[in-house]
Amino acid sequence: MDVYEALYTTRAMRRVRPEPIPDEVQAKILDAAIRAPSGGNTQNWRFLLVDDAAVKARLGPLYRDAMRRLWATAYAERIAAAQASPGDPASVSLVRIVKSAQHLADHFEQIPLFLCAFTRNDSSGGSIFPAIWSAQLAARAEGVGSALTTILGTFHKSATFEILGVPADRGWDMACCVSFGYPTGKWGIAARHPVHEVAYRNSWGGDLGYEISEPLWPSAT
Amino acid sequence: MDVYEALYTTRAMRRVRPEPIPDEVQAKILDAAIRAPSGGNTQNWRFLLVDDAAVKARLGPLYRDAMRRLWATAYAERIAAAQASPGDPASVSLVRIVKSAQHLADHFEQIPLFLCAFTRNDSSGGSIFPAIWSAQLAARAEGVGSALTTILGTFHKSATFEILGVPADRGWDMACCVSFGYPTGKWGIAARHPVHEVAYRNSWGGDLGYEISEPLWPSAT
Repeated sequence: MDVYEALYTTRAMRRVRPEPIPDEVQAKILDAAIRAPSGGNTQNWRFLLVDDAAVKARLGPLYRDAMRRLWATAYAERIAAAQASPGDPASVSLVRIVKSAQHLADHFEQIPLFLCAFTRNDSSGGSIFPAIWSAQLAARAEGVGSALTTILGTFHKSATFEILGVPADRGWDMACCVSFGYPTGKWGIAARHPVHEVAYRNSWGGDLGYEISEPLWPSAT
Repeated sequence: MDVYEALYTTRAMRRVRPEPIPDEVQAKILDAAIRAPSGGNTQNWRFLLVDDAAVKARLGPLYRDAMRRLWATAYAERIAAAQASPGDPASVSLVRIVKSAQHLADHFEQIPLFLCAFTRNDSSGGSIFPAIWSAQLAARAEGVGSALTTILGTFHKSATFEILGVPADRGWDMACCVSFGYPTGKWGIAARHPVHEVAYRNSWGGDLGYEISEPLWPSAT
């Protein structure tokens, strides 16, 4: 697969089939992940795959509770606004995201594979998320969908650490868990604010010098 | 370029030529970046390109001071250990990283392009570093080397914000700056601890089930 196809079409895929991800595909995902750079090449990372039904059965209720808390806190304002103006494009988009994320929570135990990533001495996230994103891009190349979520660590860190046996005293933090599975839907380019609305040159608000009205891939590569 | 070639060979490239990055290449880098997912698709990001010699001349001294501080703090222990045991493979590797990073600092003003990335409401970094890493992978596909650095924000945030005109009161944080340039050296696969040493299954320390002794790319794809 061309690198641009992977970069343009790896969107969050939360509706997936329960069939397992073969070992050789998992290996490609993990081996791509560890090629990413990390600050000072310290590789202060651990990747914990979860595919055991018993472990997922313990994490699932925590995950659904974390989801409920997320809606009630960080998303409360956006959800209320969407309910007040259901016809707005922003509301339609938000409802789609909420339904998709809730679907993943409701079907947590049927997700075939999770990858929980741990890091230490990385306050920015810059030494772990390149590896995570590489894992998701490699998965895309293998036809496997993925979605990154941080809510287990945000709302139920100690219970999650206990279930997964993560040592509490060695400085490890959980950066995220990523769900993996063969998607039921189609790959596509997600809607985004165009480059010239979010990019500046030489100073905040400085004119970039050009506009990009349509995605440059696939037409331009 | 195949996605695996990009994932396996995009290592930090800090020795680059001063020739500018053409607009059409910059556009590909930025347009790939904004396709990345972000939590709730909020796209709480801004990308500030710096290629003006006057701006680089103001940032350069700050960057070199930040570099000096990094060596004296987070790296002090590793540098002392490397000086004590210069023949160790870890020492050789560290010396190479330090020299390369110092080379970038010493030649800051000759780097043709920096991309400083800003984010808000993203404590983990999980909503900005996928976009950053996509930018670096797209650059790789165009033959442009890159290196991610966080030290300007760590050590000289307020001065950097002032130089770049970043508003201090709207919640923006600087995730990183990435240097871009056509490399003087060769692309290659960086040395990493293999997957089976950093990946577990179903519990911390749990056997992954297989070992990967050699990089799976290029032979296996």
